[in-house]
Amino acid sequence: MAADKKVLQITDMDTDFAQWFTDVVVKAGLIDYSGIKGFFIMRPYGYAIWENIQSVLDKKFKELGHENVSMPLLIPESLLQKEKDHVEGFAPEVAWVTHGGSEELAERLCVRPTSETLFCDHWKHVVQSWRDLPKLYNQWCSVIRWEKTTRPFLRGREFLWQEGHTLHRTAAEAEAETQQMLEVYADFCENWLAMPVIKGRKTDKEKFAGAEATYTVECMMHDKKALQSGTSHYFGDGFARAFDITFTDKDNTLKYPFQTSWGLSTRLIGGLIMTHGDNNGLVLPPKIAPTQVMVIPINMKKPGVLEKAQEIAEALKNAGIRTGCDTSDQSPGWKFSEYEMRGIPLRIEIGPRDIENNQCVAVSRDNREKATVSLDALLSSVNELLDGVQKRLYEKAKANFVENTRPVTSVEEAKQVIAEKGGFIKMMWCGDLDCELKMKEDVGVSSRCMPFEQEHIGDMCPVCGKPAKHMVVWGVSY
Amino acid sequence: MAADKKVLQITDMDTDFAQWFTDVVVKAGLIDYSGIKGFFIMRPYGYAIWENIQSVLDKKFKELGHENVSMPLLIPESLLQKEKDHVEGFAPEVAWVTHGGSEELAERLCVRPTSETLFCDHWKHVVQSWRDLPKLYNQWCSVIRWEKTTRPFLRGREFLWQEGHTLHRTAAEAEAETQQMLEVYADFCENWLAMPVIKGRKTDKEKFAGAEATYTVECMMHDKKALQSGTSHYFGDGFARAFDITFTDKDNTLKYPFQTSWGLSTRLIGGLIMTHGDNNGLVLPPKIAPTQVMVIPINMKKPGVLEKAQEIAEALKNAGIRTGCDTSDQSPGWKFSEYEMRGIPLRIEIGPRDIENNQCVAVSRDNREKATVSLDALLSSVNELLDGVQKRLYEKAKANFVENTRPVTSVEEAKQVIAEKGGFIKMMWCGDLDCELKMKEDVGVSSRCMPFEQEHIGDMCPVCGKPAKHMVVWGVSY
Repeated sequence: MAADKKVLQITDMDTDFAQWFTDVVVKAGLIDYSGIKGFFIMRPYGYAIWENIQSVLDKKFKELGHENVSMPLLIPESLLQKEKDHVEGFAPEVAWVTHGGSEELAERLCVRPTSETLFCDHWKHVVQSWRDLPKLYNQWCSVIRWEKTTRPFLRGREFLWQEGHTLHRTAAEAEAETQQMLEVYADFCENWLAMPVIKGRKTDKEKFAGAEATYTVECMMHDKKALQSGTSHYFGDGFARAFDITFTDKDNTLKYPFQTSWGLSTRLIGGLIMTHGDNNGLVLPPKIAPTQVMVIPINMKKPGVLEKAQEIAEALKNAGIRTGCDTSDQSPGWKFSEYEMRGIPLRIEIGPRDIENNQCVAVSRDNREKATVSLDALLSSVNELLDGVQKRLYEKAKANFVENTRPVTSVEEAKQVIAEKGGFIKMMWCGDLDCELKMKEDVGVSSRCMPFEQEHIGDMCPVCGKPAKHMVVWGVSY
Repeated sequence: MAADKKVLQITDMDTDFAQWFTDVVVKAGLIDYSGIKGFFIMRPYGYAIWENIQSVLDKKFKELGHENVSMPLLIPESLLQKEKDHVEGFAPEVAWVTHGGSEELAERLCVRPTSETLFCDHWKHVVQSWRDLPKLYNQWCSVIRWEKTTRPFLRGREFLWQEGHTLHRTAAEAEAETQQMLEVYADFCENWLAMPVIKGRKTDKEKFAGAEATYTVECMMHDKKALQSGTSHYFGDGFARAFDITFTDKDNTLKYPFQTSWGLSTRLIGGLIMTHGDNNGLVLPPKIAPTQVMVIPINMKKPGVLEKAQEIAEALKNAGIRTGCDTSDQSPGWKFSEYEMRGIPLRIEIGPRDIENNQCVAVSRDNREKATVSLDALLSSVNELLDGVQKRLYEKAKANFVENTRPVTSVEEAKQVIAEKGGFIKMMWCGDLDCELKMKEDVGVSSRCMPFEQEHIGDMCPVCGKPAKHMVVWGVSY
């Protein structure tokens, strides 16, 4: 992990959160800007976080019976147009390939913004009987959406993601899949990324283009804005009808199958940064950190120090803890700043006096607390300290979430809370698009979701005074 | 692994090898054709082979210090043009993005055919000092090359690959990297894929666009044609100069770094098929097979059979052997054909009489030999049988390779050997492009490589009669 030379100074997060974010992304070595707006280079450290995310999720997907596939990068315009809501949602933001080599193409091809249409076209070929169902597919790839404003991780014209696509015999089975995968996302955010979520259903305005229902996990960032962190869509048989996918069921009649898709992207890395980071840089939850422990020899020239540092690192590595040891000729101070910037959960310092005392010093990244650790109990102490970091990060994020989610009963109150305190508001809603639009216009918030755990805050929609149908969580979102 | 309904009949491989290949690719469930020429869908079984390839190589790359990154999918035309040999080689076969959403782009962007230019552009930003070197990067992605004729795995307009890109302080270090990675490819082909290779250097005509030297591993398929299976390129400081990448060396002077790249693609799966397959379908080497053993209950309705089959499968799985158990209501005969088509190295049959005798029957995919295996020695027998398959596949491929590689000392002899027997010929060469072109024209072969292990077959180039410089292996290639 060779660190590039750089000045570690970053903008204060409470002064300018957006600039702080950009500083961290660049100075922690996660991202480099490419020559094209909205296309980012994921450097080794950023990509290593993504690899850890992939590894946990891929295992989980497979345990649940999903198989990975690879679909083409390009979609013929005519294929994209088969499902009318879908094309309306995506056509305005796709990149078009018009030439192959020197020849102009007879039909434009778009770079996939998402792959529902490709999966449908494939399934039409290979699904004939109920025996061929379910199809439980996933693919890890990048997609392109020609966004106007772009930011590293949060909104790119290209981003990496996984897109699950499944096809089922019955509506109930597809519904269950949609829910199951949302639970997988929620569990992953909470228990691996230490990011508390609220689970719920999107309003029609906010749902995926072509879906009957979209479910979402929403997280709250340090600046109290919302990040949509994973979504799961139920399509009914709408796409199957549009693409004419049919199968012979057990009763020997021809039926349309039911479909889902679900996705989660590198945007989650943006979420990690904005949930846990501080004025010293990135803070990574140990369970997802590429390097969990960095061992730093102090007074390295003294005999035995380098060897001991390496011995400690080896012992931790052999125990399955992702450990580095920086034996470069940079000063300890430089190394401390560098690995704080990179958010490494635990730093171990070992110098001549520590060795004499058969101990080392362990510093937790989140609260910078120092612990003196006996080398005899190294492994158990390190595991305990890492667990502590993971737990505190979740608790801190949860406290921020809870503290800044407030029930409101009038539009005036909503305005006031959002203007003065930010965060999420919970408010009843009649279900009309007009009221949703009015909330955007008057309060500046969008509906994040209709939480599965509904609360009764009032009987009426505060916007129009008509009877309320749902409690909605509203917020300003990334 | 739900098998789609299909007729398993395939073309005889000695009657029409190309059609046999296509049949296997489709009927083993590896590939589906998409709506765009040259873009293939990798179905779960095909992709699972690729995942195994990835997993072995990724681990090896990382052991050797490489880190994964993700570069943009698109390259601005001006960036592609910076290195003149490179753009000449690739510009004629790239796909061009001209529109993002409804807006026409100011500059065309090509979908990456390979990413040297992107890595260079990035390194220019982040490399300043010798401390920043080496950069040992790799990326797993897909690339697009607008080929005229396309075939599944062998030549796609899109294909999946890994591209390693490294940057070094010295030429010697970069040269060593180039060689090291070729050795990794050779080892992988021989010891995992059971595909014997010949290692050597490409002639200038056949080398990568922009490289000083290209090294290659070449394999021989069942039809005796050559498959270039992995290449490793040394760039000198040519790209660094074109992109103005410099670093301050230890002696405080500004220098150009030295660069390599190396790649291997899903084409290798085509190689696996064409090396080991037979008239019953795919034959996979156990070390790379997604499923190594398939357990098939015989007389499934009899009490205890299903349970015993599952018990055997569980026991093998728990021992780390990738094992399936087909308990579907298809007939045993159907299942035998199906898993032969899919090339599963070992099939285990277990019926009521076997259970009585505390045994099962194991059938090796390659030679279809049956072995009666005591259930008490199940694990060791299965491991031994799998090793046997792996070993025999290599030996058979090696015999084909050796038998069909012939030294020749005249153009006439070359013509005759190629026309009558096919395979590779070894012939001396003066080093002139004209003679190489003449071999193509007169004999119909291209130079595959100048093997590292040179043999002295004669003093003169048989084409022009001038003094020979190299022994070259020639062949008809995919």
